[in-house]
Amino acid sequence: MSQTPDSAVREYIDQHRAAFLADLAEWLRIPSVSAQPQHAPDVRRSADWLASTLKETGFPTAEVWQTPGAPAVYAEWPSDDPQAPTVLVYGHHDVQPAAREDGWDSDPFEPVVRDDRLHARGAADDKGQVFFHTLGVRAHLAATGRTTPAVNLKLLIEGEEESGSPHFRVLVQEHAWRLAADAVIVSDTGMWSEDTPTVCTGMRGLAECEIRLYGPDQDVHSGSFGGAVPNPATAAARLVAALHDEHARVAIPGFYDGVVDLTDHERALFAELPFDERQWLRTAKSYATEGEAGYTTLERVWARPTAEVNGIGGGYQGPGSKTIIPSSAMVKLSFRLVAGQDPDQVEQLVRAWAADRLPAGIRHEITFSTATRPCLTPLDHPALQSVVRAMGRAFGRPVRYTREGGSGPAADLQEVLGAPVLFLGISVPSDGWHAPNEKIELDRLLKGAETTAYLWGDLAEHWRHAP
Amino acid sequence: MSQTPDSAVREYIDQHRAAFLADLAEWLRIPSVSAQPQHAPDVRRSADWLASTLKETGFPTAEVWQTPGAPAVYAEWPSDDPQAPTVLVYGHHDVQPAAREDGWDSDPFEPVVRDDRLHARGAADDKGQVFFHTLGVRAHLAATGRTTPAVNLKLLIEGEEESGSPHFRVLVQEHAWRLAADAVIVSDTGMWSEDTPTVCTGMRGLAECEIRLYGPDQDVHSGSFGGAVPNPATAAARLVAALHDEHARVAIPGFYDGVVDLTDHERALFAELPFDERQWLRTAKSYATEGEAGYTTLERVWARPTAEVNGIGGGYQGPGSKTIIPSSAMVKLSFRLVAGQDPDQVEQLVRAWAADRLPAGIRHEITFSTATRPCLTPLDHPALQSVVRAMGRAFGRPVRYTREGGSGPAADLQEVLGAPVLFLGISVPSDGWHAPNEKIELDRLLKGAETTAYLWGDLAEHWRHAP
Ligand SMILES: [Zn+2]
Ligand SMILES: [Zn+2]
Repeated sequence: MSQTPDSAVREYIDQHRAAFLADLAEWLRIPSVSAQPQHAPDVRRSADWLASTLKETGFPTAEVWQTPGAPAVYAEWPSDDPQAPTVLVYGHHDVQPAAREDGWDSDPFEPVVRDDRLHARGAADDKGQVFFHTLGVRAHLAATGRTTPAVNLKLLIEGEEESGSPHFRVLVQEHAWRLAADAVIVSDTGMWSEDTPTVCTGMRGLAECEIRLYGPDQDVHSGSFGGAVPNPATAAARLVAALHDEHARVAIPGFYDGVVDLTDHERALFAELPFDERQWLRTAKSYATEGEAGYTTLERVWARPTAEVNGIGGGYQGPGSKTIIPSSAMVKLSFRLVAGQDPDQVEQLVRAWAADRLPAGIRHEITFSTATRPCLTPLDHPALQSVVRAMGRAFGRPVRYTREGGSGPAADLQEVLGAPVLFLGISVPSDGWHAPNEKIELDRLLKGAETTAYLWGDLAEHWRHAP
Repeated sequence: MSQTPDSAVREYIDQHRAAFLADLAEWLRIPSVSAQPQHAPDVRRSADWLASTLKETGFPTAEVWQTPGAPAVYAEWPSDDPQAPTVLVYGHHDVQPAAREDGWDSDPFEPVVRDDRLHARGAADDKGQVFFHTLGVRAHLAATGRTTPAVNLKLLIEGEEESGSPHFRVLVQEHAWRLAADAVIVSDTGMWSEDTPTVCTGMRGLAECEIRLYGPDQDVHSGSFGGAVPNPATAAARLVAALHDEHARVAIPGFYDGVVDLTDHERALFAELPFDERQWLRTAKSYATEGEAGYTTLERVWARPTAEVNGIGGGYQGPGSKTIIPSSAMVKLSFRLVAGQDPDQVEQLVRAWAADRLPAGIRHEITFSTATRPCLTPLDHPALQSVVRAMGRAFGRPVRYTREGGSGPAADLQEVLGAPVLFLGISVPSDGWHAPNEKIELDRLLKGAETTAYLWGDLAEHWRHAP
């Protein structure tokens, strides 16, 4: 790689740094909290602001897309190169709720720079990481002398991510032909740490359900009937206890069918990360690690499927005691899924497993809610390698690999558009997502812009369509 | 047995029936609801009324015993026979809450006779069954021509039974020397059915605890940490699931140590009862029976120890889902105990079992509350045989045997006084204890009086002290 384009990119970014930050601050002042109905006008204002700013940036097309909830923003900037690949960038313009009295040192919607960090709700999640794309594409054009990007660049910035993206999948389905892309780049995640740039190669999927169990028609006296009729709280507990075997593997028959195992190479890459288990435990606010035998903690949270109890309840939960056999109980379960698993298939397995295990006299109902597919991009995917190279140039350090244990709407893009999902995020765990004093280091934010400035050229060079 | 004393008893009861029912109605009009603070004066009035009525009946001593809560009534009527055994009758003068709007067909504290049944709160539980003793002892004297009872007769009628008898044990300990007796007769239970007079030979004991389990210091995200740290809701469920083995036997090591097994004779006696499992399931409001392998339903609820979950809770229990690993969970357990088991010993076993089973990273606290000992009187106990004979004479039918699955303060009397506990109750399940329209059949109530009229003479005849 020549040195010249890199210094040109850096020079452009340096020159436009102040204006970029001033524009971002203007956006951050709009309290686009999607979860709070009183902020619905602000979420709309945020969408309008972004669409017009993208037009000013140079995107020939920038539209506000209405949904039954909050609006999304769509923009595209086609390349003049007919063999250019098409990239769809995903992010969101809504933010988590925030109030000064939650523990913020300054107004969450009045951005301030302290310690070279920009403090505001949305600075990291996700307005900052959306907005560096505007500076990045301009730097890419300036450094290469192009008038259009080297890739067909599309942006889809939704407005309901912090509310569970209830209308996102339908939105993507309705606009699938316009969103069509060779790769999706999600800019709503982070990297390992300030010192360790990383790319994420996959996200776990999610299936969630509630199982309600019914025993006696009403609570009955445990002195009169205890020991002789089935107790739904006991049945609930036994279901939960039967979720895992003695190796902490999920014991639902068929659950691991099709699971894409970690390769030795990927396990070796995870092992290169400077992982401090004591520090991780502090983040987890926990007192011990525990999980599937044969896997490290990182492998367990990133690359292995799980079954977890999110809630359980039944019978008397107040102070003191009450000698009853409760009439009902419930458990809320969530299953994190990895590549090769399908939430609909998991639903069928869970239904069969539960029906099979419940005793006579206990009736049950299962309701499945969220179904998010997992996504995983192979390490040797050319677009992934472009992201790694671009990030390495921007950060000047070796780029390592992670995965994401959580689940997100990116999976809908992967599934509906049939395109691989890549992750380009420069936030770090200490940026305080969803917490008071959310912030982003200014230099790191600009390295995000720099990464994209390199990325479009690299992608076009290594992943061109055949003529 | 000669016919003459029986007809004399019946004649006396017939002649005094109207006055007896009028007096009982007066007592039932006092709403002595111990669980409702606004009725505290009524509970005191009820105690005063009973003490003065017992004096009018002929008891030389009748006292109101204060406690830190509601007062009890104590009365005694010594025999002039120096070899007479001493009998302590237990009952209670407080009642369950009741309000017309709960579904009563008439004012719960304005007794009325409908269908030859006296309807009022306390008619069966327990004022009616306490009060028949006043008529019974008078009939006994009239029929035998005695001026004092054939036994040393003591009555202890507490005022907090419906509130869990919080001060009863201390009361009994403080007055142990005055309460000393050869046998305790509990008149606060029932018999099998109107057609099947029975005596109860034992009651299960009770140990209750709450186990609180702590995992992460706060709820943490199951996407980020799921599958890699211990979940206290899972730990709670596993504890509950580990309570029983595959034969529905309690799996806590040592739990069955010392348990007095049912004899073949007693099992045969239980089997003589006209038990209809479908009808029983309706009472249990349940859809199947389930319990310890090798035992019938009646054996399970009367004569086998149990472990039951009365409540379980942890994590998110609201609508929808929340992808958390909860920071805490809890279970409330109760153990019904049978003869040979000791609640303090069971507490130690449960503590050791729980500590042993919980994984690293899960802290726990166990709090034990109620500890009620079981009681059991051998079938061939001479005093028990007296009760059976007396009841047989009054009801004119064979008397069969039951036990009681619940637990009561009678066990304190057994333990503190070192006397066997016998049960003399004439209520039946359809009398509606703790329910609207509580009632007692008048003829059955008077057969209770008749039973005691025979009982004192029979006891004195078959169970005299050595001269
Ligand atoms: Zn986000
Ligand atoms: Zn009672």
